Amino acid sequence: MDQNLQTGLLDAVDAAFDAQCAFLAELVSHPSTRGQEQSAQDFMAGELAARDYAVDRWQIDVDEIRHLPGFSPVLGPYDDAVNVVGSHSSRTGAGRSLILNGHIDVVPEGPLDMWNSPPYAPRISDGWMYGRGAGDMKAGLASNLFALDALRACGMAPAADVFFQSVVEEECTGNGALACLARGYKAEAALIPEPFAESLVTAQLGVIWFQVHLKGLPTHVAYAGSGSNAIEAAIPLISALHAMEARWNLPANRHADYTHMDHALNLNIGKIQGGDWTSSVPAWCVFDVRMAIFPGQSIEAAKVEIEAVLMDTARENAFLKNSLPEIVYHGFHAEGYALSADGSAAAAQAVGALEAAHGAVTGDALDRAAITATTDARFFGLYADTPALVYGPRAEAIHGFNERVDLESMRRVTKATALLIADWCGTEEI
Amino acid sequence: MDQNLQTGLLDAVDAAFDAQCAFLAELVSHPSTRGQEQSAQDFMAGELAARDYAVDRWQIDVDEIRHLPGFSPVLGPYDDAVNVVGSHSSRTGAGRSLILNGHIDVVPEGPLDMWNSPPYAPRISDGWMYGRGAGDMKAGLASNLFALDALRACGMAPAADVFFQSVVEEECTGNGALACLARGYKAEAALIPEPFAESLVTAQLGVIWFQVHLKGLPTHVAYAGSGSNAIEAAIPLISALHAMEARWNLPANRHADYTHMDHALNLNIGKIQGGDWTSSVPAWCVFDVRMAIFPGQSIEAAKVEIEAVLMDTARENAFLKNSLPEIVYHGFHAEGYALSADGSAAAAQAVGALEAAHGAVTGDALDRAAITATTDARFFGLYADTPALVYGPRAEAIHGFNERVDLESMRRVTKATALLIADWCGTEEI
Repeated sequence: MDQNLQTGLLDAVDAAFDAQCAFLAELVSHPSTRGQEQSAQDFMAGELAARDYAVDRWQIDVDEIRHLPGFSPVLGPYDDAVNVVGSHSSRTGAGRSLILNGHIDVVPEGPLDMWNSPPYAPRISDGWMYGRGAGDMKAGLASNLFALDALRACGMAPAADVFFQSVVEEECTGNGALACLARGYKAEAALIPEPFAESLVTAQLGVIWFQVHLKGLPTHVAYAGSGSNAIEAAIPLISALHAMEARWNLPANRHADYTHMDHALNLNIGKIQGGDWTSSVPAWCVFDVRMAIFPGQSIEAAKVEIEAVLMDTARENAFLKNSLPEIVYHGFHAEGYALSADGSAAAAQAVGALEAAHGAVTGDALDRAAITATTDARFFGLYADTPALVYGPRAEAIHGFNERVDLESMRRVTKATALLIADWCGTEEI
Repeated sequence: MDQNLQTGLLDAVDAAFDAQCAFLAELVSHPSTRGQEQSAQDFMAGELAARDYAVDRWQIDVDEIRHLPGFSPVLGPYDDAVNVVGSHSSRTGAGRSLILNGHIDVVPEGPLDMWNSPPYAPRISDGWMYGRGAGDMKAGLASNLFALDALRACGMAPAADVFFQSVVEEECTGNGALACLARGYKAEAALIPEPFAESLVTAQLGVIWFQVHLKGLPTHVAYAGSGSNAIEAAIPLISALHAMEARWNLPANRHADYTHMDHALNLNIGKIQGGDWTSSVPAWCVFDVRMAIFPGQSIEAAKVEIEAVLMDTARENAFLKNSLPEIVYHGFHAEGYALSADGSAAAAQAVGALEAAHGAVTGDALDRAAITATTDARFFGLYADTPALVYGPRAEAIHGFNERVDLESMRRVTKATALLIADWCGTEEI
């Protein structure tokens, strides 16, 4: 890359960095949990329109995606599930097209009294910005947008089509990214700045969500012995699921990218609710489970085993054996994805471009990481033949209290992204 | 008792029995769960006023009862906690005064799909009336009222003051009955027709309610090993509570009236809730516990042991030991009560009167029962020096699905109650 352009881009990111932090703070102040993304998407759409990108904003129609590979089941309406894409159309089309993807949805903040400061009132301390979603992944959205701004500040535009995506549903299904695919957004590479500390994600796990609905036989607690407690009936089922988790993590069952990890696959009891009255033996209990699978592991086979584990255990319960649990899939049916397994020339070129950009900014080699979560990268990699680079800033306590993102890390990622765009897409004068 | 009066009372109950069943059906149709008792109390107050009883209706003021023995802690407002008492004032005052007590509150109905018919649409089948509260204890309220009606149908009134009480809060604190005491309602005996199958309750257990609030250390589930799951942390605490339950039930620890019961004291995990997101390690969990104690067992000592069990177990958890559970008492602080231990002449006379009435109606001796629940009888017996007779109709599945009451049993109890009133209070012409 032209040295002057490179210097110009890096300087432009620095020049706009205060504005970028202010943008991020504004974005974090929108509590965009599932179903509440609208104001944040309004803000994103406004920022994109102000920059003269062609803004496409649409409500996800489940009927348009439910037949597609990678679709995850949905409980409840999608009335508020709105994606935003801002498109840059190149005059020359001389370079390679690119998707800059990020998700606008954040996970619930949990009890407020466990935060040191309000989760949607972002604050900066010692170089970190605190707030729900600051790291996961609004800093990434800011990085994507301000990397494009840096080109413009240099009088340049990408010499290929670029699609800036702000999607919903990343935290529960991925159907937001899937809906972008279904709407026709395709490119020669994708970048997703998820907060993995400036490492390139070379593999990610699959994730399955399910709910276990248990019934009990309620009585007055005076006769508790004649009833069947639906809450306590959950306990052996949870134990059996953990035994399954241990089996799946055995060395013989590990994917090549995860052989060094003793416990890559985590099973999480994430929610529970049951019973109506303290002095009534509870008639019902529902608990929500997240379980991971390795890349290449079949979702259908995993579900068969999960169901067998639950039913076999339930049959050991005198009441449940005649009133078996109901298993409801209420979110992720996400396959694993390994960029490391993508032997295509496009993948090699995309990784090479990121290595060069990262090196130019940091002076360091690009670290690789196999992560124990999922990202929307799977849609590009598995279902659109598009190498997906997951590379974003350093964050801490994502999904936890006092979530925070390292602002200098965001600065570096923004710079690397600007260089990547200029390299991958090429540039043309505005 | 005069044989003509006795026959007249029994006939009067029969003559009004269809109306009594219609009254009960109307009462059951009011879904008078905690906080929703108003329409049922409206109905009761109207029925009492129509019979020319002096109706006293008041909102419980926690500040007027919180210092009294037997008070149970309250979470939340008492704006909707309204008692109704209808008073009969005797012209002559020749006999012994009587409280006819019943509670209007019912426990939640639970999932509707587990009922064969809607819980607040009472129906009669094979001599049973089905519906939430039909047995516990709206049939008792109907019995009390129509027993008084039977006297009136014979041209008679009790020759002593009689207080018909329709109280709230029996199912969670007993503060409704306590508020009646605090308001000055006293009598020489009390009858509470709780649904114990026409047996006289000679002993009842105490009950303690508590909530255990657990915190966790939330993280993205990808790093579940570094977090602490508040839901799963509950499991060893529940096990430890059950071990305590087993100790308290050991033969050496049993009250004399319960030596024949292997498991009189039931610990119930009645409700649970925790977590906000399937893919976040849950930061919080709350579970609700009901534990019974024997008559004579100290509530304070029981609480000390409960707290020690919970804290000792929590200290074995790497996270909880530094973030100990919070224990919240949110309901019953109910002592046990044994009528069998009341050696007073008044108690002997009251039991004798009930035996005579029961025998006259059924031809059978009066069965005795030590029950594994609590009732409002404790307030009269322990804190007002008033023998309290718990004697009511046969019911099934109280607190469960398809709760039902045996209507012929209600008829017999109503007859026995009419005879008891006439005997205990004496009669005077209207």
